[in-house]
This record gives sequence, structure tokens and C-alpha cells, in this order.
Amino acid sequence: MAEEVKLYGMWASPYSRRVELALKLKGIPYEYIEEDLFNKSPSLLKYNPVHKKIPVLVHNGKPIAESLVILEYIDETWKNNPILPRDSHERAMARFWARFIDEKILPSVRKANNCEGKEREVVMEEVCEQMKILEKELNGKDFFGGDSIRFVDIVGNVLALWFQVAQELHGIEVCTPENFPVFEALTIKESEWEKAVEEACKQLKMLGSQLKRES
Amino acid sequence: MAEEVKLYGMWASPYSRRVELALKLKGIPYEYIEEDLFNKSPSLLKYNPVHKKIPVLVHNGKPIAESLVILEYIDETWKNNPILPRDSHERAMARFWARFIDEKILPSVRKANNCEGKEREVVMEEVCEQMKILEKELNGKDFFGGDSIRFVDIVGNVLALWFQVAQELHGIEVCTPENFPVFEALTIKESEWEKAVEEACKQLKMLGSQLKRES
Repeated sequence: MAEEVKLYGMWASPYSRRVELALKLKGIPYEYIEEDLFNKSPSLLKYNPVHKKIPVLVHNGKPIAESLVILEYIDETWKNNPILPRDSHERAMARFWARFIDEKILPSVRKANNCEGKEREVVMEEVCEQMKILEKELNGKDFFGGDSIRFVDIVGNVLALWFQVAQELHGIEVCTPENFPVFEALTIKESEWEKAVEEACKQLKMLGSQLKRES
Repeated sequence: MAEEVKLYGMWASPYSRRVELALKLKGIPYEYIEEDLFNKSPSLLKYNPVHKKIPVLVHNGKPIAESLVILEYIDETWKNNPILPRDSHERAMARFWARFIDEKILPSVRKANNCEGKEREVVMEEVCEQMKILEKELNGKDFFGGDSIRFVDIVGNVLALWFQVAQELHGIEVCTPENFPVFEALTIKESEWEKAVEEACKQLKMLGSQLKRES
């Protein structure tokens, strides 16, 4: 049976980017459907009725939501170029660090983007502490996956985007490739990357002005 | 090599209870080490230096933290009595519902326990809506795992405890086995269960009085 793989995503979302990275690493052909988050498609609402969010992967008609769940599904379904380590304990550690990024660092970075002055300084110190913990785990390697991009690198890639956006929008420069090599490791370089950051900043600025006008 | 399995837990924690349930379902002998969360042991701090929290499973000297990560590890390491479904899409769905419980329902239930009056009513309505979604997924089955306890049942078990505690402490009776059969499914019956709820309530009451005195 011919495989049918569709991804409902949004160009500026680091979460749908995670899924794209995994599909590209595995070399899986897929159809990408760009969602307008202000006017979600009936397909997205049908495929993810609980959260109504991207990314959603639809494989031969069956939908899977939530980026970390999708990454595990991709790795279990297409065995080539494994994303998660084979060893059970190493797999557990990869899942542990993915959760650390999503549940600890990301909420702190979001908070830093939404506050100012002294409060932001305090939150940024928290972010730095968390980045130091992650740095220790990287332990001088090029990638969390050793010599190639794997699960934690794909998941952590979101941090690189958020830090660059924070730097562009607010001039926050606490986490840079210079003082955190881990940040360099997480910055997966692609030709469209800089453009994506620039456009994400534009969109966030526009959204900010829109919210201000509405309030 | 003889297996050495140790679990650092706390009797009233539904998160360490998850791990115990999984170990019992698999029939894995383990040493249980009760932690005093007000005076954590050097071993716990050594094995989980990032979060300093229970549960931590130590298998042949290697530690794994975070209850969902531990459950996956147990299922991958000991293949008998599988906890997660074999089919990749069903596995993805089990992971999806486990996240829904941990990231949506539990924060709402916690919020309901920490507010009062009108605010609590609003939050409880939110909880009911979320429970309806879960109920729909249960779809008349005895367990999420079909005819036996599996991943989502083990993860969701925490809800039954929290609802019973909420009922005991605050008289919140919105989610009862009568109006939510899913709640009945999640209540994994064991002889010590009622006692555990009663003692959890006592401990929470004590903690409440202690915090009041300190504030």
C-alpha cells in the first residue's frame, strides 16, 4: 500500500518544525498543509478535536497529535535513521531531557518574553540555570545524539528559535552561542532558518500590536 | 545477573503509585524506599539531581526519573504483560491520553482544590468537560486498556485519588462514579486504597494547618 503522510502545521511553529525535521531525517515524503491558526480548517478540527492545535500527522488516514507523541510514532513506524537510542536506559534519558526542555525551560523562556525589567532579569537567571543543566548533559558532544541529530536535538531546536526571537524582540542576550555551546548545538542550520526567525519576529510584533489595539 | 530494582517513592504520591502498579502488573520484585519529602535522602538527591523528586526507579544502579518515562522504561525492559499497546497508532493514542490527563485534567483538579466559591465552580465545570472527553474515549469499555489495566488506566488512576481527596476535604462531588463511569474505571480497587485516601486527606489537612501557621 502506498503510504499517505500528511502534516498539518504552521510555518512559524517550532512544534510542527520538530515533526518536519524528523520526517526529513527519515526521508519520508509527506504533504504539508499550512494552517491559518486564526481560521482553523475543518480537517484540523476533525483530526485534533481535543486540542484543536497543530501539529497533526495523518498517516494513512489516522491522525496523531502532540509533537513528542508524533516523534515517537514516526520513530516506531519508520525504523531507518533511528531518532531515539536503542538502549532502554538511553531512551529513557532522551525522554527525560525532552520533558525537561518542554516543561521547565520553555515555560521560563515564555515567561521571560512576557515580563519586563527586574522580573525578566530574575526569570532569565532561572533560564540560565536550566541551560547550564542541559549544557552539562551535552557534555562537550556536538549533539545530544552524539555525532548526529537525534530526539533531544530535534526537541531542543525550539529553544534556539525562541532565544533568537527573544534577542530580536527584546534584546535579551543572556543565552548566546558564545556563553552556551549547547545553544549552538541546538541551532540546526538550514538556509531558511534566519528568514524564519526574522518572519517569526515580524509576526509576533504584529500580533503584539493587534493585542494592544484590542485591549 | 540478578536484577536489582529499587523504587524511591512516597506512600501518598499517586506518581510513585503509578510505578508500583506497573511493577506489580509485571510481577517484578523490587525494593521500596519510602522518602521523607521534608528531609530528602542523599540517595534521592544523587539519583534525581535535576528535579529532586520521587518517583525514581533504580535498575541495576541506573536511575530513571519522571513517572511516565519510568512506565515506558518498565514496559520496554520487561516484555511480559505489556502496558502499552503493540500497534504504533494505539501506542500513540495511549501516550496522547496520558498527556491529556497530566497536562489538562490534573492542573484543573489542582486548581479546584486551591480556590473557593464561584471560582471553584467555574474550574469544576472545566474538569467536568475534560472528564466528558475522557469518558468518550473510554467508550463503554471496562478499562482504557480494553479488558485489563494498561497505560492510560495506570496514569489516570491518579485522578480517582485526587477526586476522592477533593470530596473528603472540600465536599466537591461533581465527579463521582455515578455521573462519570470513567471515574469508576480509574478507581483501581485494592484493600489499602480507602486507607490511603483517608491518610492522604489527613496529611493534606496537616500540611494546610502548617502552612496557615507559617503565613
